[in-house]
Amino acid sequence: MKHVIKKTSKFIKRSSKKAGMSPGTLVHVGEQRLDKAMISVMNYDQDRLEEKELKRIEDSFAYKDTPPVTWINIDGLHDVELIETVGTHFGIHSLTLEDIVNTGQRPKLYDFEDYIYLVLKMLKYDDTIGHIVSEQVSLIMGPHYLISFQETEGDVFNFVRERIRKGRVRIRKSGPDYLAYALIDAVVDHYFLILEKIGEKIEQFEDRVHSEPTPEILQNIHTLKREIIYFRKQVWPIRELLNVWQKTESPLMQEAHKIFISDVYDHTVQVIDTIESFRDIIAGMMDLYLSTVSNRMNEVMKVLTIMATIFIPLTFVAGIYGMNFKFMPELEWKWSYPVLWILLIGIFVSMLFYFKRKKWL
Amino acid sequence: MKHVIKKTSKFIKRSSKKAGMSPGTLVHVGEQRLDKAMISVMNYDQDRLEEKELKRIEDSFAYKDTPPVTWINIDGLHDVELIETVGTHFGIHSLTLEDIVNTGQRPKLYDFEDYIYLVLKMLKYDDTIGHIVSEQVSLIMGPHYLISFQETEGDVFNFVRERIRKGRVRIRKSGPDYLAYALIDAVVDHYFLILEKIGEKIEQFEDRVHSEPTPEILQNIHTLKREIIYFRKQVWPIRELLNVWQKTESPLMQEAHKIFISDVYDHTVQVIDTIESFRDIIAGMMDLYLSTVSNRMNEVMKVLTIMATIFIPLTFVAGIYGMNFKFMPELEWKWSYPVLWILLIGIFVSMLFYFKRKKWL
Amino acid sequence: MKHVIKKTSKFIKRSSKKAGMSPGTLVHVGEQRLDKAMISVMNYDQDRLEEKELKRIEDSFAYKDTPPVTWINIDGLHDVELIETVGTHFGIHSLTLEDIVNTGQRPKLYDFEDYIYLVLKMLKYDDTIGHIVSEQVSLIMGPHYLISFQETEGDVFNFVRERIRKGRVRIRKSGPDYLAYALIDAVVDHYFLILEKIGEKIEQFEDRVHSEPTPEILQNIHTLKREIIYFRKQVWPIRELLNVWQKTESPLMQEAHKIFISDVYDHTVQVIDTIESFRDIIAGMMDLYLSTVSNRMNEVMKVLTIMATIFIPLTFVAGIYGMNFKFMPELEWKWSYPVLWILLIGIFVSMLFYFKRKKWL
Amino acid sequence: MKHVIKKTSKFIKRSSKKAGMSPGTLVHVGEQRLDKAMISVMNYDQDRLEEKELKRIEDSFAYKDTPPVTWINIDGLHDVELIETVGTHFGIHSLTLEDIVNTGQRPKLYDFEDYIYLVLKMLKYDDTIGHIVSEQVSLIMGPHYLISFQETEGDVFNFVRERIRKGRVRIRKSGPDYLAYALIDAVVDHYFLILEKIGEKIEQFEDRVHSEPTPEILQNIHTLKREIIYFRKQVWPIRELLNVWQKTESPLMQEAHKIFISDVYDHTVQVIDTIESFRDIIAGMMDLYLSTVSNRMNEVMKVLTIMATIFIPLTFVAGIYGMNFKFMPELEWKWSYPVLWILLIGIFVSMLFYFKRKKWL
Amino acid sequence: MKHVIKKTSKFIKRSSKKAGMSPGTLVHVGEQRLDKAMISVMNYDQDRLEEKELKRIEDSFAYKDTPPVTWINIDGLHDVELIETVGTHFGIHSLTLEDIVNTGQRPKLYDFEDYIYLVLKMLKYDDTIGHIVSEQVSLIMGPHYLISFQETEGDVFNFVRERIRKGRVRIRKSGPDYLAYALIDAVVDHYFLILEKIGEKIEQFEDRVHSEPTPEILQNIHTLKREIIYFRKQVWPIRELLNVWQKTESPLMQEAHKIFISDVYDHTVQVIDTIESFRDIIAGMMDLYLSTVSNRMNEVMKVLTIMATIFIPLTFVAGIYGMNFKFMPELEWKWSYPVLWILLIGIFVSMLFYFKRKKWL
Repeated sequence: MKHVIKKTSKFIKRSSKKAGMSPGTLVHVGEQRLDKAMISVMNYDQDRLEEKELKRIEDSFAYKDTPPVTWINIDGLHDVELIETVGTHFGIHSLTLEDIVNTGQRPKLYDFEDYIYLVLKMLKYDDTIGHIVSEQVSLIMGPHYLISFQETEGDVFNFVRERIRKGRVRIRKSGPDYLAYALIDAVVDHYFLILEKIGEKIEQFEDRVHSEPTPEILQNIHTLKREIIYFRKQVWPIRELLNVWQKTESPLMQEAHKIFISDVYDHTVQVIDTIESFRDIIAGMMDLYLSTVSNRMNEVMKVLTIMATIFIPLTFVAGIYGMNFKFMPELEWKWSYPVLWILLIGIFVSMLFYFKRKKWL
Repeated sequence: MKHVIKKTSKFIKRSSKKAGMSPGTLVHVGEQRLDKAMISVMNYDQDRLEEKELKRIEDSFAYKDTPPVTWINIDGLHDVELIETVGTHFGIHSLTLEDIVNTGQRPKLYDFEDYIYLVLKMLKYDDTIGHIVSEQVSLIMGPHYLISFQETEGDVFNFVRERIRKGRVRIRKSGPDYLAYALIDAVVDHYFLILEKIGEKIEQFEDRVHSEPTPEILQNIHTLKREIIYFRKQVWPIRELLNVWQKTESPLMQEAHKIFISDVYDHTVQVIDTIESFRDIIAGMMDLYLSTVSNRMNEVMKVLTIMATIFIPLTFVAGIYGMNFKFMPELEWKWSYPVLWILLIGIFVSMLFYFKRKKWL
Repeated sequence: MKHVIKKTSKFIKRSSKKAGMSPGTLVHVGEQRLDKAMISVMNYDQDRLEEKELKRIEDSFAYKDTPPVTWINIDGLHDVELIETVGTHFGIHSLTLEDIVNTGQRPKLYDFEDYIYLVLKMLKYDDTIGHIVSEQVSLIMGPHYLISFQETEGDVFNFVRERIRKGRVRIRKSGPDYLAYALIDAVVDHYFLILEKIGEKIEQFEDRVHSEPTPEILQNIHTLKREIIYFRKQVWPIRELLNVWQKTESPLMQEAHKIFISDVYDHTVQVIDTIESFRDIIAGMMDLYLSTVSNRMNEVMKVLTIMATIFIPLTFVAGIYGMNFKFMPELEWKWSYPVLWILLIGIFVSMLFYFKRKKWL
Repeated sequence: MKHVIKKTSKFIKRSSKKAGMSPGTLVHVGEQRLDKAMISVMNYDQDRLEEKELKRIEDSFAYKDTPPVTWINIDGLHDVELIETVGTHFGIHSLTLEDIVNTGQRPKLYDFEDYIYLVLKMLKYDDTIGHIVSEQVSLIMGPHYLISFQETEGDVFNFVRERIRKGRVRIRKSGPDYLAYALIDAVVDHYFLILEKIGEKIEQFEDRVHSEPTPEILQNIHTLKREIIYFRKQVWPIRELLNVWQKTESPLMQEAHKIFISDVYDHTVQVIDTIESFRDIIAGMMDLYLSTVSNRMNEVMKVLTIMATIFIPLTFVAGIYGMNFKFMPELEWKWSYPVLWILLIGIFVSMLFYFKRKKWL
Repeated sequence: MKHVIKKTSKFIKRSSKKAGMSPGTLVHVGEQRLDKAMISVMNYDQDRLEEKELKRIEDSFAYKDTPPVTWINIDGLHDVELIETVGTHFGIHSLTLEDIVNTGQRPKLYDFEDYIYLVLKMLKYDDTIGHIVSEQVSLIMGPHYLISFQETEGDVFNFVRERIRKGRVRIRKSGPDYLAYALIDAVVDHYFLILEKIGEKIEQFEDRVHSEPTPEILQNIHTLKREIIYFRKQVWPIRELLNVWQKTESPLMQEAHKIFISDVYDHTVQVIDTIESFRDIIAGMMDLYLSTVSNRMNEVMKVLTIMATIFIPLTFVAGIYGMNFKFMPELEWKWSYPVLWILLIGIFVSMLFYFKRKKWL
């Protein structure tokens, strides 16, 4: 839980520092994860592919109006100056730039006519800390270029790069809109890996809830539930994003590609559906935990009751004949002791019989 | 519970393998349930019926543009190559093919103008494992043909085949849209058999909740609830599917057949209504279980309290006269012992009376 | 609870028998409640009223196109042949006929242009079994006729018959649409009687929850809740039905009568509102039951604790001086015994004082 | 709770008496609160005001078409004949008249072209019985007249009458639509007084939940919750009413007055918001009650456990040396008794220490 | 809790005083927080800035039609006369004025054609009392002027003033609509500071729930939850406000500025999202508290049960041999005592073993 609170409150602290600044002021909100921003460029059409790493962002400006398609990828959002330069050259609205460097964005899409701006989250289940880690990805989709901004290097886009390199027909023939689709598809496909991890965890916990319902396992389930809620919160707005995208009437979008967006939409719905199933399963596990614990408690109480109820009367009887009255005729009688034993055993047996009938044993 | 988790996570594992592939790459996601894909063809009009099993898929290509109606049924989705061949010949979009072989689809309908694509789930309650088993059915509805894809042989379509063979008027006179309707109607009608099974289970459990509220019965109810949720999740989107279908303006659809779709829609709503009723009943059963258990617990506690409260003071009194003080006048007195018994019985009776008045007995 | 499960599963069993039949196959789903179907006819205009019982359904055919209004009422749905004959003559769609004889319909309205089909439930609270009993009513509203189908004789329509016989102006002057409205109004008005019954039950239970919160009373509340849910499920879709009816643009409907439909709509909303109030009240009663029970439990536990806590130390003290050590100086001292009593009474009183301060007494 | 049940079931009993009557039959549903209906008239324009009490309703008919504005107020709904006379003369639809005399209406608005019909509830918190009491108010808003119907004399309209008498500009210059607005505004403003009462009650209970969480206080909270739900049910539909009113295109409504309706709408939303806050607060109080009670229970259990756990072993030890065996070497030893005391005190102290460490003390 | 109740009921008391007044009557509803209302004016265009404090409100009237932009800020709502004067001169509708001085408004926007009226809440987390404190801000946005009304001096607008003074390009070049946006942006940005505070509190509580789950900490969580609900209630309607603003077609609004409104909208959604996360976390903390407490309770019960179950039989055995029967052969036997010890230890050990196997130890 602490992890999520910390994540949230860290973000808020940074956000609140921004309070009072004028809109469009670029302030990097998020952790700096990289020493220096890195810029890579892929320029391609059906027949040709040019790929390079840039030292200076200015070298990418030539691609702005160069047909057919250039993909400029920038890793590292802390270099606010660099992003401002890009913004100025490519004519990006100051509010868009502000959103790019503020890593607390909800997934959304905004059509600025000159370009379409998309932002969403790349998610990774970090096994070492046992939490979902997110990285914000922004896409600027212009007529001949697509600029992607990430917080750090290492991403899920390598599969897309491979497909471009391999000269796969569709991606090399299509414009930046298809490239944007391919990137988002890669991000969403990656969510299935997180579902897989969560599924494994649930299977583990499930066994243990039954065999040893300790408070620790309950807390583990709580933590997992929280991660699932966090996951859902990141994925849910993507549906809306894709919905808006599909309905966007823009010269930047080819009508024939809309079916691909609808395909990612279906995947997103699948992810959300599975998340909902997981929530149901976890709710069921909690119920099971509670009823298992309460069941054990009942067992404990029954044992106490049985023991106490059997022995308290017996002890009373023994107490009676431990009294020191001068005149207690039974004490003198020779068969008192054996008769008493028979009495005690009789009480004992009839108690057992009573509990048996009550189904407590 | 484990069953559902396994079902879910198995699917995810397969899905996640697909992450990173380009869209339209055909990868079979699901269990291979059949050695070899099987192809059967029914070509018919009002007067004529031709029925055969095909060895090679190529033999079916002739039917593409042959009026009036051909129903091509393919069992087995693992033969990706075969499905790709069908796709190429019948002009099916690569995303559709991807959906056909990926058995994790939500029920949906998509109008590709040349054809309409429908996908939904055939469900069966498998008594041996006590769970609902699903099989994905995809329908491609073209102008003169209907192609159905299933995971394995054996289906609920035999009734439809019989009707075609018997020369039933409407189905023989109508086009592929009516055939598609008939198939989906068969699938939905089959859901009632599952409702019946669940209804039986509920009746069984109901008796036992009352007579012997063991943790086992609670877990059985939990499992049943989970199956019901799973069932609902499969059926719910069919409403939307049928809704979309009814509103589809397509030359592939005859206006006069829309009322039939509306009829299946009503059946689907009935299924969902009954599922909801079952959920309510099960929630009520859980409440009943909990209150029965807590009631028994209260009984146990009352017995403990009554026994302890009666005998603890009595034992104390006996303890008093078990003391060995030299000077205890009562010990010497002759009637002490009988008087003590009267005292003890007096305490006992007044305790009983007190509990009676408190309605604990 | 069993009652509802049985009702539901009986219906499902019958429904599932139908699985696989072609649509429009007439199979009676429901109990046969009547030996022989009964047909009655009322033909009237403002000045004239003709009323008779028919032996053969064919005698009613003449009324199809006879102005002004004929009301044909058929009791008994098991006579599938008869209903088929009616259907053929009056040009009723096979799906409508199927719905008429299948008593598991949700209330709905469908405009077939030639006629409007309405189906809903007549409900009765059967005091002998303590449950709500439903009977399906279907109305076929044509240009000059209205056919009503019921499961058995005896209905809430007698008030309407009386109004027709008495020559009440509006109903005799108006067409089948007003007659249909009058019938549905009668059905909905009848629901208030059920509300009344439920209200009485609630009042009874309410007193008992407080005075004697036994598990039986809880189960009675559970059963009542279930009946209320069942009731709500039958009434809820009628809102939609009336809504659709009001919006229906059909030559079969007179614009001026729509306000009457809106009036029944208001009544239906009132019924639903009262049902919701009842649900709230019942939920409150359950909470009250639970807190009353748990409160009693707390009382029990307090008594146990007080008794045990007071007497256990006292018994210990008595035990000490019951020991048989040779050298126990107190035993020899003359005032030991009275001093001990003072000690014991001191402990006792201070314990009481302690519990008093803790507000346990 | 009983109060609400009785209110509800009384209403239902009366409603159910109406079942089977033809629509438009006037039957007074509600309590008769007044011996004789009272009629008062205010006829005014900007310069002139005429105010009188009428003996016969016929005297009001002259005002029907007299400009500019006449407000006819009728107290007492049991005089069905009088209301029928009004209805006939002013051309009011029979369904409207039925609604006026049936006091179980939900707030609603209906535009009959000749007039607009509004119905809503005047509410009062009756301190003597501790419940909200409602009175139905119907308004008929015609071109030159406004007729208001109430169940009994005494209302929240006196403020409006004062404003008319004082010659306040707007109300004297405007038509019946503004008057209708003013009346409804008065009704809604009055709701704030009820909110105030409820707020006071909540404050009272809040203190007591903490200091003395008795079952009585819980039941008081339950009762208050029920009143709040009842209140909400009466206020909620007024939003819809005002919404419909604002959208009504009618020659009876002046466009410039719509902003006033929107103002009452805002007030209604404020009332509902506050009701929702109260519900949250009450839910929180119930949670607090439950956790306070369960906390006290835990305290009780701890005391029991500590006492029992400390003294049971001690008593056992004492019991050992109370045995009468011939050969028990300890009994003979001189220092046995003091050593035993040391042992007992040792057990006692270490137990205390153990509980301290466990934080039970 | 009390704080919120008091806040609410104080407001209601004042509101209810207004009941019965005619609409547009100006009555200050809220606390008077300032001795005297303060008026400040900023008149600016791209090149020029004039800033002054006014003694008399009349001095501001000259700015009404003076281009380009004048921002008149008024602190103190209790001076109803002053606000009436402003209203008369600037042509503000009496309902608007009523809303300005009544501090119980929900955030809303209303387009009066001559001006646009906006009202929302400035919120502050007051650490000394540990509650959120709200101040109502109203904006009147005319063609050349913007009037802002606040309850007291000291606000979040200083950042905006700085930006105007610094001659920041956009705000000096734009009209009152951009100024209104800037002010609302400042208000919403300030909400992040409250989120930060709440986040800190949650972190504090989180640690303590685990280490010492006292009733006090539970109540703290309850209080925090209530503050969060209050916060949410203030922020939620701002979404709607901004939504309406964006869709407003008014000559007072520049199309190009709508994107800025959409930006504040996104921030508001972020605030609400974080609030929802906090609610989830708090719900989780309460669950954790409850399960921690119940877990401790179980521990207590187990200790009791173990102690009682072990020693009660042992005490019984000791009691047996404390009896004073004349003829008890065991008493005479020499090895009785040691054998008995072996027996007792045997029972003890096997009990321990039993509990071990049951996992109670």
